[in-house]
Amino acid sequence: MANISKKVSWSGRGDDRGERTPLLNGAEDGKYNRHVLHFVFQSLDYDNSENQLFLEEERRMSHMGFRCLETRRWVICGLIGFLTGLIACLIDIAVEKLAGYKYSAVKQNIEKFTEFGGLSISLILWAVLNSAFVMVGAIAVAFFEPIAAGSGIPQIKCYLNGVKIPRVVRLKTLAIKVFGVICSVAGGLAVGKEGPMIHSGAVVAAGVSQGRSTSLKKDFKIFEYFRRDTEKRDFVSAGAAAGVSAAFGAPVGGVLFSLEEGASFWNQMLTWRIFFASMISTFTLNFFLSIYHGKPGELSSPGLINFGRFDGDYNLYEIPLFIIMGALGGVLGALFNVINYWLTIFRIRYIHRPCLQVMEAMLVAAVTATVSFAMIYFSNDCQPLGQDNTEEYSLQLFCADGEYNSMATAFFNTPERSVRSLFHNPPGSYNPLTLGVFTLAYFVLAVWTYGLTVSAGVFIPSLLIGAAWGRLFGILLSTITSSQSIWADPGKYALIGAAAQLGGIVRMTLSLTVILVEATGSVTYGFPIMLVLITAKIVGDYFIEGLYDVHIKLQSVPFLHWEAPPTSHWLTAREVMSSPVTCFNRVEKVGRIVDVLSNTSCHSYKYRKICGLILRSQLIVLLKHKVFVERASSRLSHRKLQLKDFRDAYPRFPPIQSIHVSQDERECMMDLTEFMNPTPYTVPQETSLPRVFKLFRALGLRHLVVVDNENGVVGLVTRKDLARYHLGKDGLEELHLAQT
Amino acid sequence: MANISKKVSWSGRGDDRGERTPLLNGAEDGKYNRHVLHFVFQSLDYDNSENQLFLEEERRMSHMGFRCLETRRWVICGLIGFLTGLIACLIDIAVEKLAGYKYSAVKQNIEKFTEFGGLSISLILWAVLNSAFVMVGAIAVAFFEPIAAGSGIPQIKCYLNGVKIPRVVRLKTLAIKVFGVICSVAGGLAVGKEGPMIHSGAVVAAGVSQGRSTSLKKDFKIFEYFRRDTEKRDFVSAGAAAGVSAAFGAPVGGVLFSLEEGASFWNQMLTWRIFFASMISTFTLNFFLSIYHGKPGELSSPGLINFGRFDGDYNLYEIPLFIIMGALGGVLGALFNVINYWLTIFRIRYIHRPCLQVMEAMLVAAVTATVSFAMIYFSNDCQPLGQDNTEEYSLQLFCADGEYNSMATAFFNTPERSVRSLFHNPPGSYNPLTLGVFTLAYFVLAVWTYGLTVSAGVFIPSLLIGAAWGRLFGILLSTITSSQSIWADPGKYALIGAAAQLGGIVRMTLSLTVILVEATGSVTYGFPIMLVLITAKIVGDYFIEGLYDVHIKLQSVPFLHWEAPPTSHWLTAREVMSSPVTCFNRVEKVGRIVDVLSNTSCHSYKYRKICGLILRSQLIVLLKHKVFVERASSRLSHRKLQLKDFRDAYPRFPPIQSIHVSQDERECMMDLTEFMNPTPYTVPQETSLPRVFKLFRALGLRHLVVVDNENGVVGLVTRKDLARYHLGKDGLEELHLAQT
Repeated sequence: MANISKKVSWSGRGDDRGERTPLLNGAEDGKYNRHVLHFVFQSLDYDNSENQLFLEEERRMSHMGFRCLETRRWVICGLIGFLTGLIACLIDIAVEKLAGYKYSAVKQNIEKFTEFGGLSISLILWAVLNSAFVMVGAIAVAFFEPIAAGSGIPQIKCYLNGVKIPRVVRLKTLAIKVFGVICSVAGGLAVGKEGPMIHSGAVVAAGVSQGRSTSLKKDFKIFEYFRRDTEKRDFVSAGAAAGVSAAFGAPVGGVLFSLEEGASFWNQMLTWRIFFASMISTFTLNFFLSIYHGKPGELSSPGLINFGRFDGDYNLYEIPLFIIMGALGGVLGALFNVINYWLTIFRIRYIHRPCLQVMEAMLVAAVTATVSFAMIYFSNDCQPLGQDNTEEYSLQLFCADGEYNSMATAFFNTPERSVRSLFHNPPGSYNPLTLGVFTLAYFVLAVWTYGLTVSAGVFIPSLLIGAAWGRLFGILLSTITSSQSIWADPGKYALIGAAAQLGGIVRMTLSLTVILVEATGSVTYGFPIMLVLITAKIVGDYFIEGLYDVHIKLQSVPFLHWEAPPTSHWLTAREVMSSPVTCFNRVEKVGRIVDVLSNTSCHSYKYRKICGLILRSQLIVLLKHKVFVERASSRLSHRKLQLKDFRDAYPRFPPIQSIHVSQDERECMMDLTEFMNPTPYTVPQETSLPRVFKLFRALGLRHLVVVDNENGVVGLVTRKDLARYHLGKDGLEELHLAQT
Repeated sequence: MANISKKVSWSGRGDDRGERTPLLNGAEDGKYNRHVLHFVFQSLDYDNSENQLFLEEERRMSHMGFRCLETRRWVICGLIGFLTGLIACLIDIAVEKLAGYKYSAVKQNIEKFTEFGGLSISLILWAVLNSAFVMVGAIAVAFFEPIAAGSGIPQIKCYLNGVKIPRVVRLKTLAIKVFGVICSVAGGLAVGKEGPMIHSGAVVAAGVSQGRSTSLKKDFKIFEYFRRDTEKRDFVSAGAAAGVSAAFGAPVGGVLFSLEEGASFWNQMLTWRIFFASMISTFTLNFFLSIYHGKPGELSSPGLINFGRFDGDYNLYEIPLFIIMGALGGVLGALFNVINYWLTIFRIRYIHRPCLQVMEAMLVAAVTATVSFAMIYFSNDCQPLGQDNTEEYSLQLFCADGEYNSMATAFFNTPERSVRSLFHNPPGSYNPLTLGVFTLAYFVLAVWTYGLTVSAGVFIPSLLIGAAWGRLFGILLSTITSSQSIWADPGKYALIGAAAQLGGIVRMTLSLTVILVEATGSVTYGFPIMLVLITAKIVGDYFIEGLYDVHIKLQSVPFLHWEAPPTSHWLTAREVMSSPVTCFNRVEKVGRIVDVLSNTSCHSYKYRKICGLILRSQLIVLLKHKVFVERASSRLSHRKLQLKDFRDAYPRFPPIQSIHVSQDERECMMDLTEFMNPTPYTVPQETSLPRVFKLFRALGLRHLVVVDNENGVVGLVTRKDLARYHLGKDGLEELHLAQT
């Protein structure tokens, strides 16, 4: 029959039932297979479902209507920037205060016991304080919201890539994240507060743009137009950028971060909005911090990190040295990632119970304090207290009066301040041996710390390690060469070392260059920083991927890279696609739809022609509202469904089990015509994988229908089908799909 | 018949016959219609034609092969950066030298005649020198390569947008451009050398990446793989970025410029390469300039423009003032564009003969000299010569000894130096009246100059106008308010004014912010500059588009914006597409192909199913190589055609007239199977315009086939079909297509 038109439906498995998050605890049954992709991760739909309802709404809207929408988008971006800035401010002040109390208490204690002996009591005090802070943070994370663990950058990277990760942008996640990061930084772990800021920004964006909180069951009835994946993802990009901007005082860096990690389709207006959010965020943070610091209105200080300004100069002769440092950073970064990779696998296998996770975090906190204490205790590197001393908690310990222990400046301090000291303290502030030992100790601590069940970032520890060995490099250089004048400034090498180490670990280049340039306020060093980052990336990539990619892979997320593997031209859509596809008639029996969605019956009919695409979530909304046509009469008794009904259910669509359909209703029919997308993107079966990939990635699709010569549906390409293929050591490799 | 498969061919009209360039001289017959799109502009094909030959080559290539290609891409980008830097260096030094000679001669003359009277002789000397320089430049442009006129940014913007503009990236264009810009800057016109730098970078990229020069008939037999639109366009992006980078010392700004103007699909590796080219370009320029200035190895000075560093600070209270300045910049910028718009229409109508164009350019040069002279002569604003005086050609004129004429610093100088003086000279260096008169005079001159048949940019004149009124604003402010301390620095307002004026004229935001931040080396001013640019854009867009867009529209280029007009959802592919489409059989008679390509017979058969897409250029190569199958035998007598044959013919495919096909050959058949792209992107007829637009723009397509339910070809969407619809004052408007 020629005039029976058919329709494709895709029943996503596992996306609305029991949203267990496998992130960071991939396999809780003790078994862990590294080469799988999890079915729990769904794609975000960056392509609008252009069904009749949607088109009618768009066509009704006037030119002014679109203007209003655009204005609203700007307002939302402003709000995102403002709130992200506020949160950054809150984190900063809370960490400062708590760390201040802690260090003051420990310092007093140490000073008391330095004279009388019995410094072990100080050590215990320090270790207990650290562990207590970390315990509170780890409990919050491990028991209440495991997704809040870590820096959050891998998760946001996945989200921007188009992977829907359960619970990643919820309000609860935000609360636990903020609370957790304050605890872990105050607890003296080798962590930074920057990664979590980025995650926080993303959550703020996802919340504000929807005009409601599903968790709090509060709907403000605003911004309803934006309740779909397309719009939400755009706003989350802006939120992530605002987070970077607040964290590093780097608005342009923030925009580039979002683009480098997320955007596939670059839209000028969107980029401007992202930039606007970033700018507002830095501005808000600076404004409130200037009030807090008692200098209201002085806006020129940058974000959370103030690396201070580099006014120095570099010379042509130094460029080979910078490249060598870049290579060194690449090697050290790769080492970091390899160790952390094995550690993470160990953790996934053996430390997956929350209480064990909390105990590990406390152990690390105690060890960190002990190592720090031992290093300070055994080093006898005394430096004179200068006039322009920026150390807030300088320890005299066994040094003479008017001197301080230079190891303590590195350990007895928040990591941000230590980085700044390494960048800017005058030549001669550090003993080479001190720096060497510090680098080693901090490297081990940082590797161990990343991946703990605490909310914490890896940027600052990486910078600190790099700054330490970079400064060491600079000192050694000036010792070797006689011409003091040129190599005089070890701070410069600390900066380059920091860039090399961070680049070696995370492998970002463009955005990281800009972030570092903005954070240090020195455009001059842009070129060497870029050279160093590119070298670090090339060298590091030879051994292992970047840290975030390692963790994404460990979590079996179907992450799509920028392009299909170059050697994949021999694969075609026919080989890549999933089939058979579940098809419905344009007017289908309710019973069959329910059965298919409940997975009780999955056999598909052999249909000829595609006439549209409908989503599981849309079918569920239709079932819920009982949009049925009785068999006998074609009279429509039900209320006409509107886009609003779909938006209200977004994004947490009810599971099929919660919808009750009586036996009578099962015999009714459902007319899907006005709800399906009649013009889905399609490709012929012979299309090569790179071509399919390009279409899928550029348009941010969730499903791509594969058709034959007659326009008949033969298969469906989804994210997993494409993410499966990746370039291994011996050419193209294929990952398995996990069935859970 | 079910098994007759069909194929679509599209015969582009006018792309390889008589490449008349209508750019800047749109209608030479005296008639000019503003609302048309020209057929002479073809799309670049950003989508590879994945025919059998292509796939075979890709499949043959090993993993190492792709690595080599990637390495080659990096090498090319390095070369592009290096050569662009060198050219920038050449331009800079040539302009410095020539302007130096000129100003020294005029200065000596003026000094001689100031005492004895008879300054009119000095005026004549100045005017003649200016006119002579400009004449040489204008003759080169008007008679030898009209496309080299103007800043080149509109052309590059179009190229990056995917429009193939005839002759825009040829070697001859580069030579004339460089020569022209040196002449026009040395000739004292109100122009800058930055826009042409961007064009130069693009030409360098297009040349280097192809490994040959068609003009010089020299083929180096390297980089043959990159001889197609996809790769070439990527390299041209890098070249444009390198140009910006060299011009402003802004590598990140360069990358953002390329992305803001060109990229639709953001690819991380591509972006890094672009960034690399930018960095190398700045580096090369700085390196050679440091040698030229006798301080080899001092690399920290930025690009061609050195705006000097802003270390100042701003306050919260100043932000509303900045926004007001932004609005003012928007209004003045719109005024600039409106006047220039009418002037350009006047020029297109009446000044289209080359000799008239040269005469106009000379007239402007003479008037510029006269106005400058008059302003200097009649102003009696004498300022004491400071210690840190940066003016190289300070004129004493009628001032007392130890003083200089401050109007002369603004006029008797290259515009770059004037901008720097306005930014950094200490408060009190300028009299408000001087600045006011200067702003007015320079505004008129700059409006008149842009669009002349000389090679020249508009960035620097815009900055200069803005800096002048901005400084005036600052001075007035400090006069009004009593608190001298806060508003003391008029240089800050000069910077903001410059940003506002430039933003009001060109309407770039993100990239311009970064360019200005990098050029001034002050991250601090990022936020106010962004605010000002966004305000200027919003205000300016209310009146008229940006200057480049105005010129693009005047030249009837089918430019695709970022998104389809929002109110275009009621249009579908059926209404938008061009039809009928010329179709061929999979195996077609040679005679019919020749007839169709020669336009002698254009009737199309009604075919049922699409089986591929073939380009006019491919057919021509096939005809040229006589890939015919004799009717009787299916034996292939000809050499098997390879991709290399297509690459050798790229990009200047011979016209159909040059191919001779005998009467016997006309009866032969051509088998198109392995040359056509069997999997072109298709859309159903009911697809809405925004959806079609998104697909077309995101993938950089040249043709999009519209099919019916049966996969039969019903039409073809090209760039013109989409560019036709734009948002006018009263909603959606449709442009006409010019048939010439």
